[in-house]
Amino acid sequence: MKITTKKEHFTNPLYLESGRILEPYDLVYETYGELNATRDNVVVVCHALTGSHHAAGRYEGEVKPGWWDGMIGEGKAIDTSKFFVICVNVIGSCFGSTGPMSPRYPSDEPYRLKFPVITVSDMVKAQRILFDRLGIYEAYAVIGGSMGGMQALCFAIEHPRFAKKHIILAATYATQPWAIAFNKVAREAIITDPAFKDGFYDPETIKKEGFDGLAIGRMSGHISYLSPDSMRRKFGRHYVETDGLYELFGRFQVERYLDYNGRSFVTWFDPLSYLYITKAINIFDASRNYDSLEASFEHIQSELLLLSFSSDMLFFPEEMQTIQDTMERIGKGKQSRHIRIESDYGHDAFLVELEKFSHHIKQTLES
Amino acid sequence: MKITTKKEHFTNPLYLESGRILEPYDLVYETYGELNATRDNVVVVCHALTGSHHAAGRYEGEVKPGWWDGMIGEGKAIDTSKFFVICVNVIGSCFGSTGPMSPRYPSDEPYRLKFPVITVSDMVKAQRILFDRLGIYEAYAVIGGSMGGMQALCFAIEHPRFAKKHIILAATYATQPWAIAFNKVAREAIITDPAFKDGFYDPETIKKEGFDGLAIGRMSGHISYLSPDSMRRKFGRHYVETDGLYELFGRFQVERYLDYNGRSFVTWFDPLSYLYITKAINIFDASRNYDSLEASFEHIQSELLLLSFSSDMLFFPEEMQTIQDTMERIGKGKQSRHIRIESDYGHDAFLVELEKFSHHIKQTLES
Repeated sequence: MKITTKKEHFTNPLYLESGRILEPYDLVYETYGELNATRDNVVVVCHALTGSHHAAGRYEGEVKPGWWDGMIGEGKAIDTSKFFVICVNVIGSCFGSTGPMSPRYPSDEPYRLKFPVITVSDMVKAQRILFDRLGIYEAYAVIGGSMGGMQALCFAIEHPRFAKKHIILAATYATQPWAIAFNKVAREAIITDPAFKDGFYDPETIKKEGFDGLAIGRMSGHISYLSPDSMRRKFGRHYVETDGLYELFGRFQVERYLDYNGRSFVTWFDPLSYLYITKAINIFDASRNYDSLEASFEHIQSELLLLSFSSDMLFFPEEMQTIQDTMERIGKGKQSRHIRIESDYGHDAFLVELEKFSHHIKQTLES
Repeated sequence: MKITTKKEHFTNPLYLESGRILEPYDLVYETYGELNATRDNVVVVCHALTGSHHAAGRYEGEVKPGWWDGMIGEGKAIDTSKFFVICVNVIGSCFGSTGPMSPRYPSDEPYRLKFPVITVSDMVKAQRILFDRLGIYEAYAVIGGSMGGMQALCFAIEHPRFAKKHIILAATYATQPWAIAFNKVAREAIITDPAFKDGFYDPETIKKEGFDGLAIGRMSGHISYLSPDSMRRKFGRHYVETDGLYELFGRFQVERYLDYNGRSFVTWFDPLSYLYITKAINIFDASRNYDSLEASFEHIQSELLLLSFSSDMLFFPEEMQTIQDTMERIGKGKQSRHIRIESDYGHDAFLVELEKFSHHIKQTLES
């Protein structure tokens, strides 16, 4: 499989939903497979909150492959011997595309809290501009899970002639207060940590010295990504062997897991990006610029495949069903299909239980 | 209804499950109604994590009555014209019974982190000792929700001849990793906050100046007490009127709710008590001192009423069903009854949706 990682620089202003302008900006993206002569084999993959453009393959020396490596490759569900797959790091993120720690032109100083609030629509708009530059005016499909699914839905509504098929996993039509509450804990933990310094932290210092607020935020996130059953299976009530049950700070295995993943998160993700991207997730509402969800979905011309997971505790299957119900209510039921996958893995199922649903994606892409 | 609030002082050592000793110690308790001549009308009510002995009635000048006022009183489900109700503040708490901020005898200095880890069994044992002093050697019933339900179950197993009936609401047979994870976020937020000062905070100072870690911990708790549906009904996606949607720190109503309840929590609950009581909850396992849950339940001689709530996201109805299933497996199914109450209110249902289940309690108490 041919993997290419590139960065594009844009000097034209990006007009944001907020009314603000991002100018100039960079977008980093990765592609897998080859664009065919008729340029009609493009599959856009959209990443989630802490994901990146590195969706598949393994860089030299890298231990873990890209975040959806089991899904993208030769002979896999998103078959790179047929499709040219492209994944773009969203604006606001911290893996190379312009985000809050990027220099604020014309200075060399990072934006920090002067970075504009961005939305899922903005992320999608920036991707369209990149695709235009690459000479890609149409895609065969757009696919994404969680915030990636929000982007896919946004592509379907706001860029209805761009792609023929949209595959949305573990997402919602509008972020509900339950999900906003988990983000709230994380956001509060970040901004109240003295290490945050009102946004003026040194990124290298926090990597070395830690940033408890971001670690705690990640822990709150992890609860919502797992499920009671997956936690029970994974950790049970097992206690860390070296800790005493009657020590106040003795830990259960689940606590050690959260500690480890929380602390290590700080070494690879930026606190300000976390604030900006959770904000984008919180304000995501597919009906916002329309009178109703129905009016919004009237724009959809493509085929939708909706995959939800029975134990998803962040974006519940009922929320995906609302998308399906709305499509049916406006007479577009035949364009849309909702499959509720039985899984114990919670929200993370879209990243880990590929064998449960990848055939649905393969079938949709190859039919 | 006659309300009495008292404190008892004990100089005999309290031998704790950890092997440590608490000596001396105080217990604060409240009673409602009158003890009858035959002393057989006692109903013990056990409180939850942040509850207190003040279960019912209203003190002079108090805005809110006790935490289960709708349940306890003349003509109410726990009818104080018939029953003598007693509620004891658990050891480890911060409402008058001995806890981590109590003076460590013989000094006047608080225990702080030198306070021993306590368990639900210890809380129950201390209550038994208090009841002995009051000349109460038997109770008609023990009732509690959440951690109060753990105490009620513990009474049934470890003090099987004490009460005839045990009513357990919104609890579990053993705290599962999902609940431990919510507590973990809270515990980490508390101990990593510089205001914690390794336990050497000044209680008055944090009340005035705030304690973000405890506020964040309370927010994490609130998520687990509510449910996706109750949040949707209560807050929807409504935004705070004075905040801008595209302001990074603009807030949804659910965020304002969490802010308000988190920040105010600091004015009425102690951070160290939060650490000690969540520890007691985390390590609660009704089977711990036995080979199995079955072996543990073999001790139960009383009648159990188990009330769970369909939308409880902290202690799931399935966990209560495990108690029922275990009772049935050991041939005690007729002694135990599990009723799953349909409710959207989540874990908090046991505190707020009294009309949905109080008749079951009344019936059990008066049959």
